[in-house]
Amino acid sequence: MDARPIGVFDSGIGGLTVVKQIIDVLPNENIIYVGDTARVPYGTRGKEVITRFALEVANFLIHQNVKCLVVACNTISATALDEIQTISPVPVIGVITPAAREAVKKSSSKNIGIIGTSATVNSKAYERELENLDTMVNVIAQACPVFVPLAEEGLTEHEATRLIAKDYLTTFNNTAVDTLILGCTHYPVLKNIIQQTVGENVTLIDSAKPTAVELKTLLENMGLQNGFNIPRYKFYVTDAPDRVNKVAQILFQGELPGTIEKINL
Amino acid sequence: MDARPIGVFDSGIGGLTVVKQIIDVLPNENIIYVGDTARVPYGTRGKEVITRFALEVANFLIHQNVKCLVVACNTISATALDEIQTISPVPVIGVITPAAREAVKKSSSKNIGIIGTSATVNSKAYERELENLDTMVNVIAQACPVFVPLAEEGLTEHEATRLIAKDYLTTFNNTAVDTLILGCTHYPVLKNIIQQTVGENVTLIDSAKPTAVELKTLLENMGLQNGFNIPRYKFYVTDAPDRVNKVAQILFQGELPGTIEKINL
Repeated sequence: MDARPIGVFDSGIGGLTVVKQIIDVLPNENIIYVGDTARVPYGTRGKEVITRFALEVANFLIHQNVKCLVVACNTISATALDEIQTISPVPVIGVITPAAREAVKKSSSKNIGIIGTSATVNSKAYERELENLDTMVNVIAQACPVFVPLAEEGLTEHEATRLIAKDYLTTFNNTAVDTLILGCTHYPVLKNIIQQTVGENVTLIDSAKPTAVELKTLLENMGLQNGFNIPRYKFYVTDAPDRVNKVAQILFQGELPGTIEKINL
Repeated sequence: MDARPIGVFDSGIGGLTVVKQIIDVLPNENIIYVGDTARVPYGTRGKEVITRFALEVANFLIHQNVKCLVVACNTISATALDEIQTISPVPVIGVITPAAREAVKKSSSKNIGIIGTSATVNSKAYERELENLDTMVNVIAQACPVFVPLAEEGLTEHEATRLIAKDYLTTFNNTAVDTLILGCTHYPVLKNIIQQTVGENVTLIDSAKPTAVELKTLLENMGLQNGFNIPRYKFYVTDAPDRVNKVAQILFQGELPGTIEKINL
């Protein structure tokens, strides 16, 4: 039994899609979330800058006495997970391994597609992970840099989003890809348009659920799970214009179970 | 005669549209440019965060012994110009006043439109400036938050950009607006689509040229201009993934007259 909170963080508020699943799978756990909304997006930036920013956020959470860290962001998981694990005194899990495992499990053709930010795609982290899991896997990746701003502006069903999706996802036409990893925590809100564009025969993999399940296993294996508890949730952001509150509801798909507080890192 | 460089800065590389005009109007001046590409965009953030970031960039330039500061960014000019002027030992000019003057000069109907980032539009800085210049002016403003990422991705002639422009610019349909201020240094690269959407009868105002001309007057009035000189240009950014070099050429509309160097702030 360990009542310390789970620390979850993201470059922005996309990671709230992961928090939602953690609450569902681990209803007794206290959670502290940090979204670095003052410096979002990370996905267009270089590795050194992403690592520097991510370590600042991780350090903040470590000082809140968390029992583990969940990197609820594909860009950070893809570029800076090792560096975070190096400085962290508590276990750290990212979203890449759980999503890759789920994709390998679901794919029959062993042709797996990945979409993500430029940083995630350039890192080739998914390719490495998928090939570790199954050497027979064939991977096709496509960066979709405009998806994050479109999602953040709520243009989730806009014709413009559909046209841009069509452009990006052309990559997967006439391939044997039967499974597509949504390699960015923002993309689940664009699920409808993505599914319609790639067709119903392609299975979309969202990292949120597999990550929550992997976290549950980790806590159990290490004896870190909490007993019965009425959980406390704290949400911190580094900048909180009105937009953040609004988009938080879109990504969490409902009312947040706590208020959003602003911090400086 | 003053050989010290002019300091120009922006949240990213949109300010290069202003640098281009400064080079054209003041060919003897040395220029140091800083783009805070590690934390771009500022336009979706709150005033306190924008001010903190902008003061860090301004301080860097002040330590480079610049003779004046040009805030080549509408978002910073709209939200933090006073704060920068307070800490700066050298004169500071922004892009809002020059663009507003040009708009008042060009408008016959005295109905002036403004498009910009959310931060710029929420600040009401253009409204205040325009009403100071002419109390008879009627102002209509519209935030266009997705324009910056679309411009940065080079989707300057994409059908999706046209659809989003149509949505945003509906605001100006059936109004007497005859002059539209492009209140963001990124927007000139979307000029074609914006002009086609609002129609040929609306005059678009780009702040780059008026700002360069105002800078020339300032230097002359204060005896700060340089004599004949083969100018040196330095371009600094706080993050330099490949994308930055590519987009820099789009915004500068040609080869940059210098290399881009990375700094930490």
